[in-house]
Amino acid sequence: MQSPQPLRNGGVETPSPRPRIQAHFQSTVSLQKLRRFNTLILVFRLATFCFTLAAAIFMVTNSRDSNPPHWFDFDSFRFVFAANAIVAIYSLFEMGASVWEISRGATVLPEMLQVWFDFGHDQVFAYLLLSASSAGTAMARKLRETPTCTANNAFCVQSDISVALGFAGFLFLAFSSLLSGFRVVCFVINGSRFHL
Amino acid sequence: MQSPQPLRNGGVETPSPRPRIQAHFQSTVSLQKLRRFNTLILVFRLATFCFTLAAAIFMVTNSRDSNPPHWFDFDSFRFVFAANAIVAIYSLFEMGASVWEISRGATVLPEMLQVWFDFGHDQVFAYLLLSASSAGTAMARKLRETPTCTANNAFCVQSDISVALGFAGFLFLAFSSLLSGFRVVCFVINGSRFHL
Repeated sequence: MQSPQPLRNGGVETPSPRPRIQAHFQSTVSLQKLRRFNTLILVFRLATFCFTLAAAIFMVTNSRDSNPPHWFDFDSFRFVFAANAIVAIYSLFEMGASVWEISRGATVLPEMLQVWFDFGHDQVFAYLLLSASSAGTAMARKLRETPTCTANNAFCVQSDISVALGFAGFLFLAFSSLLSGFRVVCFVINGSRFHL
Repeated sequence: MQSPQPLRNGGVETPSPRPRIQAHFQSTVSLQKLRRFNTLILVFRLATFCFTLAAAIFMVTNSRDSNPPHWFDFDSFRFVFAANAIVAIYSLFEMGASVWEISRGATVLPEMLQVWFDFGHDQVFAYLLLSASSAGTAMARKLRETPTCTANNAFCVQSDISVALGFAGFLFLAFSSLLSGFRVVCFVINGSRFHL
């Protein structure tokens, strides 16, 4: 939790104007870099949101009439829907937090809480989404061997699409998780989320 | 990729003995910390190895006689076996690399390559193992609804145990992945894997 920045700039009894200008220049550069970094995270979160929302909608609209099969009869498909819906809601919240941070230059929660919150949830939800998508894939492949798919092929195709969209959402969430992990370690080492 | 260490210790034309002693003390402390950190990683890798090896063995010995069902008839179970075997082999290699690093104080591969190799493979293999275990769980649950499990319950129980061991292996691999991620960011920021 040390902060080396003041040590680098300080250590002089009578401060000359040069280090101050340099420090100002440095902080402007790091602010710009942080903004670019946050914009990248925002793009990843937007992609995650779109894919997981689409996956959840594809799954929930998979049984339009009252005839079986229904998606909620299969526990793996229920898991796929729940995981995608949870991640979509989480991504929406995180997008809001990112926009807030880019526009106001401050985090919604206290800085330490925010970086740990983002990283922890990214990791857990990435694992959750991958787990659901894998379980969904196993179920979809198993269904292909049963008479369900020959009788109602549209059901199986729509399930496949939903699972595939979930995988795409996972990919972007995993990228966000890497970036937020980087922010955590910057915070632990520098005492701030600025990575310069 | 900057290395602030020489800057902190240097900047003096005629070096007095005090900074040198201090630097020596600092590097001894960081060496000790690094060794403790590497021992922790080694313990996690050992646990991962044990669990994934046990999972692979439990799966591969699941059909002792020539009567069906066989584990290799189910693609999810083949995936569980393959993922656990791959992670067991990888953990064995990484344990060797950890022991080498603890005993000799140097990495097997060049330092930059080693930290990125560890982190990248940890992440990918953690996702692979979770994906396999989830697919295995979905298949095991689906099997419970079929006559396969009523006819041969031992097969289903042994599959369940194998999948559960895979999940335990994943847990320890995810912890290793966090630690190796920490090492990567230390390397990126400090230019060395020493985290002081």
